[in-house]
Amino acid sequence: MKENRYDDPVFFEKYSQMDRSRKGLEGAGEWRELKALLPDFAGKEVLDLGCGYGWHCRYADGQGARRVLGTDISRKMLDTAREKTDSARIEYRQAAMEDLSFPDSSFDVVISSLALHYVRDYRPLVENVFRWLRPGGDFVFSVEHPVFTAYGTQDWLYDSNGEILCFPVDRYFEEGERIATFLGEQVIKYHRTLTTYLQTLWQAGFAIRSLVESQPPEDMRSLPGMKEELRRPMMLLIAAKKPL
Amino acid sequence: MKENRYDDPVFFEKYSQMDRSRKGLEGAGEWRELKALLPDFAGKEVLDLGCGYGWHCRYADGQGARRVLGTDISRKMLDTAREKTDSARIEYRQAAMEDLSFPDSSFDVVISSLALHYVRDYRPLVENVFRWLRPGGDFVFSVEHPVFTAYGTQDWLYDSNGEILCFPVDRYFEEGERIATFLGEQVIKYHRTLTTYLQTLWQAGFAIRSLVESQPPEDMRSLPGMKEELRRPMMLLIAAKKPL
Repeated sequence: MKENRYDDPVFFEKYSQMDRSRKGLEGAGEWRELKALLPDFAGKEVLDLGCGYGWHCRYADGQGARRVLGTDISRKMLDTAREKTDSARIEYRQAAMEDLSFPDSSFDVVISSLALHYVRDYRPLVENVFRWLRPGGDFVFSVEHPVFTAYGTQDWLYDSNGEILCFPVDRYFEEGERIATFLGEQVIKYHRTLTTYLQTLWQAGFAIRSLVESQPPEDMRSLPGMKEELRRPMMLLIAAKKPL
Repeated sequence: MKENRYDDPVFFEKYSQMDRSRKGLEGAGEWRELKALLPDFAGKEVLDLGCGYGWHCRYADGQGARRVLGTDISRKMLDTAREKTDSARIEYRQAAMEDLSFPDSSFDVVISSLALHYVRDYRPLVENVFRWLRPGGDFVFSVEHPVFTAYGTQDWLYDSNGEILCFPVDRYFEEGERIATFLGEQVIKYHRTLTTYLQTLWQAGFAIRSLVESQPPEDMRSLPGMKEELRRPMMLLIAAKKPL
């Protein structure tokens, strides 16, 4: 049973208050580093797995993509995404990404922003993405960093005065389900090691062309909680390519 | 000033008692995973940066390398290394790896086991290795994992009963010197992010062909301290290739 947390009205309402929901890409600390990993979209067919509000779909469209398909398990997410565009080149489809099916070589670019850590079975998805891409195609995604997902709570350790002590790592090589608190609600996420994220890509046939642990940009470090993000890696950005 | 900790008699004596010193490669928890990343050595010219007792030099020699050069800053390490072989194909040279100089395209394989985290300036070294390698050559190395080096102490956090609570991460994006306690002695090591380890290789011109966070093999998990190594990543193994 795939979790559809974002269709929960309370959770969705809280998510809608986040900077990345209100401001879009410019409100997301990792956007500038992710953008630098994206290929040229001009004339491309693009798939966005877990598209949420559709910010990345609209970005690809704005960069000249020929066609963009955004998929998400959450109807509420897609309702919002549809309200935000009238581009005839963008299509939204409600589906869990594990259930998607396309002919081989359907897309030039597959992107996914902070969604793959909700997927239990990473390997079959990566194998699908490899098939769905044309030779020379790009797979660029962000996930929560394995350091961030290993322990489970996704929270700092604090001293008796409530000051941050450090970020805890444990159970690193024990992959699988974690119950994290996100926006004050319990959410199921899946921890995988860095080794698994990368080896699965290589084994599927991808070449890895870049990897970045995102850091908040200088001009966002005064925002609440941002300076602390220099103390631990929270997000992992990976750019892979299907060889020609 | 490059630190030469292994020529300190007390430190050297303690190091000589470790399983990896007494038993060699089979006593090192990461050896089987590192071995799997190594290229075929037959007929190759090999450089080992920070060769220590020379275990990897003798392995390359045993696998048919044409010539093996092992370098280390520590005279005591090299004295022990020389005692352990009479192969005419192995040469040992005392030098800090930052001070080495070779003509372009001098080697087919450059290896380094758990030494690069003692090097302050990683980028110029990587650029040198790229030049020293022939096209198609391999650079395979292990380092302490960024998760292991970030906080600094390289020790667990414990509860009031002395039980392990978790492994602490902090100052992750603050690269540079850390004073760690190793074998009861203070040692200077350098923390770098995973991003830096990989981007520097790409920027120098390498392709990255594998990355593994080593886990102790099943049959070593009963050894003291080994089971805990499933709770955090301690070592990072990377295989890079200079394109043809």
